Amino acid sequence: MDAQLKGYLDKLSKLDFSKMYNNDFLHTWDKTTDELKAMYLVADALRNLRERNISTRIFQSGLAVSNFRDNSTRTRFSFASGTNLLGLQLQDLDEAKSQIAHGETVRETATMISFMADVIGIRDDKYIGEGDDYMRQVSESVAESYEAGILDHRPTLVSLQSDSDHPTQSSADLLYLINEFGGLENLKGKKVAVTWAYSPSYGKPLSCPQSLIMLLTRFGMNVSLAHPEGYDLMPELVEQAGKYAAESGATFTKGHDMAEAFEGADIVIPKSWAPYAAMEKRTKLFAEGDSEGIDKLEQELLAQNATHMDWHCTPELMAKTAKGMDTIYMHPLPADIEGVSCEHGEVASEVFDAHRDGLYKEASYKPYAVAAMIFLQKVKDPVAMLTALEERGTERWLQA
Amino acid sequence: MDAQLKGYLDKLSKLDFSKMYNNDFLHTWDKTTDELKAMYLVADALRNLRERNISTRIFQSGLAVSNFRDNSTRTRFSFASGTNLLGLQLQDLDEAKSQIAHGETVRETATMISFMADVIGIRDDKYIGEGDDYMRQVSESVAESYEAGILDHRPTLVSLQSDSDHPTQSSADLLYLINEFGGLENLKGKKVAVTWAYSPSYGKPLSCPQSLIMLLTRFGMNVSLAHPEGYDLMPELVEQAGKYAAESGATFTKGHDMAEAFEGADIVIPKSWAPYAAMEKRTKLFAEGDSEGIDKLEQELLAQNATHMDWHCTPELMAKTAKGMDTIYMHPLPADIEGVSCEHGEVASEVFDAHRDGLYKEASYKPYAVAAMIFLQKVKDPVAMLTALEERGTERWLQA
Amino acid sequence: MDAQLKGYLDKLSKLDFSKMYNNDFLHTWDKTTDELKAMYLVADALRNLRERNISTRIFQSGLAVSNFRDNSTRTRFSFASGTNLLGLQLQDLDEAKSQIAHGETVRETATMISFMADVIGIRDDKYIGEGDDYMRQVSESVAESYEAGILDHRPTLVSLQSDSDHPTQSSADLLYLINEFGGLENLKGKKVAVTWAYSPSYGKPLSCPQSLIMLLTRFGMNVSLAHPEGYDLMPELVEQAGKYAAESGATFTKGHDMAEAFEGADIVIPKSWAPYAAMEKRTKLFAEGDSEGIDKLEQELLAQNATHMDWHCTPELMAKTAKGMDTIYMHPLPADIEGVSCEHGEVASEVFDAHRDGLYKEASYKPYAVAAMIFLQKVKDPVAMLTALEERGTERWLQA
Repeated sequence: MDAQLKGYLDKLSKLDFSKMYNNDFLHTWDKTTDELKAMYLVADALRNLRERNISTRIFQSGLAVSNFRDNSTRTRFSFASGTNLLGLQLQDLDEAKSQIAHGETVRETATMISFMADVIGIRDDKYIGEGDDYMRQVSESVAESYEAGILDHRPTLVSLQSDSDHPTQSSADLLYLINEFGGLENLKGKKVAVTWAYSPSYGKPLSCPQSLIMLLTRFGMNVSLAHPEGYDLMPELVEQAGKYAAESGATFTKGHDMAEAFEGADIVIPKSWAPYAAMEKRTKLFAEGDSEGIDKLEQELLAQNATHMDWHCTPELMAKTAKGMDTIYMHPLPADIEGVSCEHGEVASEVFDAHRDGLYKEASYKPYAVAAMIFLQKVKDPVAMLTALEERGTERWLQA
Repeated sequence: MDAQLKGYLDKLSKLDFSKMYNNDFLHTWDKTTDELKAMYLVADALRNLRERNISTRIFQSGLAVSNFRDNSTRTRFSFASGTNLLGLQLQDLDEAKSQIAHGETVRETATMISFMADVIGIRDDKYIGEGDDYMRQVSESVAESYEAGILDHRPTLVSLQSDSDHPTQSSADLLYLINEFGGLENLKGKKVAVTWAYSPSYGKPLSCPQSLIMLLTRFGMNVSLAHPEGYDLMPELVEQAGKYAAESGATFTKGHDMAEAFEGADIVIPKSWAPYAAMEKRTKLFAEGDSEGIDKLEQELLAQNATHMDWHCTPELMAKTAKGMDTIYMHPLPADIEGVSCEHGEVASEVFDAHRDGLYKEASYKPYAVAAMIFLQKVKDPVAMLTALEERGTERWLQA
Repeated sequence: MDAQLKGYLDKLSKLDFSKMYNNDFLHTWDKTTDELKAMYLVADALRNLRERNISTRIFQSGLAVSNFRDNSTRTRFSFASGTNLLGLQLQDLDEAKSQIAHGETVRETATMISFMADVIGIRDDKYIGEGDDYMRQVSESVAESYEAGILDHRPTLVSLQSDSDHPTQSSADLLYLINEFGGLENLKGKKVAVTWAYSPSYGKPLSCPQSLIMLLTRFGMNVSLAHPEGYDLMPELVEQAGKYAAESGATFTKGHDMAEAFEGADIVIPKSWAPYAAMEKRTKLFAEGDSEGIDKLEQELLAQNATHMDWHCTPELMAKTAKGMDTIYMHPLPADIEGVSCEHGEVASEVFDAHRDGLYKEASYKPYAVAAMIFLQKVKDPVAMLTALEERGTERWLQA
């Protein structure tokens, strides 16, 4: 067996992740630390196999259903890639082309698309509370239909971003850091600045920063969260991130000064998001069908954003970090790059350009994060299966 | 060999269905009774294999082309599932994104999408006469192109609903009944009420009820068709259903009283549809490009519908059936459920809720109906192939 | 080994096409004559295998990404078919549903969709210079990302039509001629009329005629290009076509008389296109966002077109060719057929009808052209691989 793969499997065999089998992956905080570690190891193992041209196809047939209730390129292609890697065929539920009756229950639609679906990936990140609620309903629906004998299996869910969490993104982020720092254990004690940054556009989801603070604190990283006053995240998540930090022996600080957060940081992750209170208001307006109110709110938020243009990632700010311009800069992409996609935005083009390769590598882990989540849902004994796949040695791409 | 599978294959080997090979499946009434029986047995055999995790993949590559000229969720996913089960890759012909020239002939488009298409599934159910006509043209076109040596094979067609028939739906319905009653032979003599029901929406296709009366009468079921005056189905189909009933020793009654139809019924299938005469008028208006006329007709029909709100499936009506609320209630879904998707509609929520599991099971047979139709079109000796698939024993979903 | 396949492989083994491996296919003129010959042989070899029901699947998993920036049916299905034949799963980059930020760089998008993409097919044919430029950027982007270690492989590109060339179309055309005339060598000395023809629609791309004159001249065919004054093609391509003709010992004449071009022709290919100068003007107006100017230009061009209605392919014109109505008439389809899709157009229905089977056969080679381009990009030793595929003998469509 390949030495690197053996390393992953040795670590994997020491973890308890049995509850991931036949289960969903909706939030990282639903998972134990062992389960998360297992997911990173499986992701790296699948990457190891693919890069050595060994097929990891575990399905001869079966559908992976995607349901994007918001636009997506990166996550769409990551889901397409990760499911294809395992042998599933992608089938998109395009609600515009479907015959989902007014008032049709979620349970009905969920069951109707699931007769041969092995996994369902959902993005629903627009309105506070709704995405999580929708995914929970879909999950319960297919579980009920499985228990009632309607489905011959239980399709498992992968969240492709809700309004609270973006687990495939933050998992890709962590996989990137694990591989950059040579192991999960090496992340302990590293300082990460998770900060707000100015964007000329409106209503970016809170799930990205929330996903980060909830994940990084669990592995002993010292997280400094900073944003202008009024740009709070969901309070219960911020509180939980503090608890995670305490448990892992790390620090979790909150502040309103970008430069302070950057001070001595080993990793910086500045990104725009909308204020939680405003997003709650927007959700309420949406529920009331008040589109005029939504437009008005948008204008207010853009005006509010515009008072914080000084929150942007510049070479000057990078100079305050541990390694200056060499300090790791991360972003889920696409970023608002000054002079490229906007005049004023999240990041100066010098910073972005210097970190482009790293940013793209960060993104490259997402298909593996998706595949690993599904692999752990679908394979009872992942160590045995990964071993079997290497032994089978089927070429992914036939060579001659 | 698995005993259940053996049972299916023993029955299958006694039937004559040789003409299904390389042929289309456009209407159940194009098929002999033996051919229909073969299709149900193959559907159940494929289900048996899949549920035992045995791959039924018979294609290493090949396209299944879908052409939905009307919205669809259930049938779209059933086609995606059934074709995937056999190893085909779905490719949708989205007429909005294609470069089909004004006046381009059906033969041309049909040929252009077929060079590597093994099967073509079409839904075209909006205008009386048009769907069947379009499918016939596509079928003749690919046959011509095959005979002319342009195509190296003859792609076969599966109707995913025309204006006259909805064969994958009624076949799923029959598969459900076969499995509920423990065999096709046990359906003989059962009373089925196929009735109209009120819907607040407009112009539901006639193909569902027509498909049912044309199919159930062939297997000795006593069918009571009931609808308000003026809501006639296509007269030639109603007449043929009567002949089928006579041939199979069953009864076929027509009336205008929902309660009478429900009296002593073993199965009830109440569903809305538009009056045939109105649909013919609408088709004419559409051909004339008279969109104002179409809107006016819609208003008239909605008003006409509204005078029949008492045609809905209530617990009181269910009480008149053979087993009261336990009597089988069926619907192709989505149903207009009172208090859920509408105020007044096809079915009371108590009735729907009590039968939800059954309704979802009914739907679960559709992917197998699709797969069985294709299997019989593509496999010369289905008994031998199903035997070979079991012997091959490739796991659909690799286990470790 | 099958004798016909052996013939192809014997020829193939005498050619030098090693530079096609891991490389793009953007224009036929980027390729050596040996490389083009190799592509035709591989296309015919893949067809030979498929027609004998031998799977040519060389990928167990992997994505083929398509990016259609203009509508398409034929090429879309050809790309879906050709990639499926090799085992890839199609994933469309629908820019409308994606989250491509304003100003996001091509390199970023190209990398984001490529983590598991083995091939990228692009159609971008609307604006002079833009399609070629976009494809070049995508190609450079994925190459850079591969070199930077972001991508574990280099996804290769296939042009599905740019503003200058339509290589999958002209390759299908040549494959058709090779098979009609019994070998590439038999095309030498044949006269081909590539002429403009009237169309009531606007702005048809120049890439089709340009692709033809640049390709046919390389194989010793005598090409007569004819169009009304003012309907020039890109001058540098016309010049290069002349050089190709000189090199291959053929003639390349230009004129403004359709009948003269048809005189004694063995093959005629009349088709509408827009004047180069007008397309350049349109590109400029588009860049300036002058939609009023674009509309005005469209009206002018339609009026200009309308003065050349006598440029259409009639039986009278066919009578001037080498074999009259039996002379090969070609078109990439859909054609503007008089009395079918328009009153006045490119071709009389008698001519079209008489050549329909040939036209459809011409189109049938496009999936193989696509597959051959990809095969040569992805297989280091195509002779060995094709031999191995025949020896493996996996049935594409399982028989029993």
